[in-house]
Amino acid sequence: MPELLTERSARVVAARKLTRRAGRDAAGLFLAEGRQAVVEALARPDGVREVFATEAAAAVHSDLLARTPVPVRMATEKAAAGLSETVTPQGLVAVCELRDVHAEALTTAPPRLAVALAELADPGNAGTVLRTADACGAGAVVFGAGSADPYGGKAVRSSAGSLFHVDVVRGADLHELLPALRATGVTVLAADGGGAAELPALVAGGRLTGPVLWLFGNEARGVPPSLAALADARVRIPMRGRAESLNLAAAAAICLYTTQLAQG
Amino acid sequence: MPELLTERSARVVAARKLTRRAGRDAAGLFLAEGRQAVVEALARPDGVREVFATEAAAAVHSDLLARTPVPVRMATEKAAAGLSETVTPQGLVAVCELRDVHAEALTTAPPRLAVALAELADPGNAGTVLRTADACGAGAVVFGAGSADPYGGKAVRSSAGSLFHVDVVRGADLHELLPALRATGVTVLAADGGGAAELPALVAGGRLTGPVLWLFGNEARGVPPSLAALADARVRIPMRGRAESLNLAAAAAICLYTTQLAQG
Repeated sequence: MPELLTERSARVVAARKLTRRAGRDAAGLFLAEGRQAVVEALARPDGVREVFATEAAAAVHSDLLARTPVPVRMATEKAAAGLSETVTPQGLVAVCELRDVHAEALTTAPPRLAVALAELADPGNAGTVLRTADACGAGAVVFGAGSADPYGGKAVRSSAGSLFHVDVVRGADLHELLPALRATGVTVLAADGGGAAELPALVAGGRLTGPVLWLFGNEARGVPPSLAALADARVRIPMRGRAESLNLAAAAAICLYTTQLAQG
Repeated sequence: MPELLTERSARVVAARKLTRRAGRDAAGLFLAEGRQAVVEALARPDGVREVFATEAAAAVHSDLLARTPVPVRMATEKAAAGLSETVTPQGLVAVCELRDVHAEALTTAPPRLAVALAELADPGNAGTVLRTADACGAGAVVFGAGSADPYGGKAVRSSAGSLFHVDVVRGADLHELLPALRATGVTVLAADGGGAAELPALVAGGRLTGPVLWLFGNEARGVPPSLAALADARVRIPMRGRAESLNLAAAAAICLYTTQLAQG
């Protein structure tokens, strides 16, 4: 039986720094916790440095851990809990390389569907939008400067593995990127509860059939006006009821699904 | 200057019991915190017993509090914080009567669009689905036995006021309610990632034009099979990408918006 790594082991101390954004950016690494995320991570093992597992988790997930070339480090419950941001740690954490692609990759080969987030505050929303974007076939999600970090624990968890499926661009200057994408023929649409264009009218007008980038903003303040001004249209979702607005994840789901359908 | 109520005042002690479900059910009351919720609550003042406000909040919201017939109780910051479930208490909390309607009201006069939730676990999702249902014109949201409580602090906050716009049914036996609604002509649809029916096919087939009830299940386990078996169809949302599934709030947004459009 190999010795278990404790919370004072150098490897665990180094990994724990990845629970903070500054630590992730300094090391170029992030943590993916739980079976679903670790399965997705290990699908491309050259992007994974190591996996920490408790004895209990190693037994439960022996199928997964036996067949990977990635080193598996056995750790105490306490050490594994220190790498977790959940109330009930799962005892299984992969140390993964950041998956950022450069914004230029987008303008060089624009995906058919992409998402940009401006000043998105909530990490749970960051992960949920990644998951929805993936489900609807988006090729990239751009996190503008000042947005929540998609590599934080809550965002990774909310993305339910989708962080490993789509290209992630971080810290992009959206004031530069949006015009550059429009110049390549991408239709840039800003989701805006006060927008002049209604989503069904865009569908009817055939505006969603080519490559589209959807821009979503801050949960409370929406898309910054200086960015909305760069879009082809500011789009509102028609609402029959009395709610003032939809929450951001719900609005994103409606816009992205509608686009997926329109693109056929 | 009237004396401020402290956390030991009888009124505050009684209100604090409403932060727990047992306390809410025993008293028939719940707490609505923050300007948006209190504005919606005070729109029907006979359903509001009293409002607690800190001096700072009373100054900020003097417009709102000056014109209501509901008693406003001035309270210390600490007393108001004890009634809050947020990290940054807003100092403004209304004590409201539970707004439950009986399940029979649904079968007597079925709304054109309704939602039922089976074993929904997360209070934030409870509030978000209420908000989305309201936006899409739903008349009622049914929380089946074992679902999160829509009157909890996080659910009220996530609903963004929509709790005051739609009829809420709690603790309904969905095994009885669903057949009863179908007997009145309501189409009952279970959202199910493995469902045989695809959402766009239902639209094309004209299945969403009459009265519809959407049934959503637990975040991890989905709709219980015994309930899904009672639906007219188990419906999946087609996904172009690689995500295994959508999160519950995103799936609900897509289903409800699609129905709103189909109902015209």
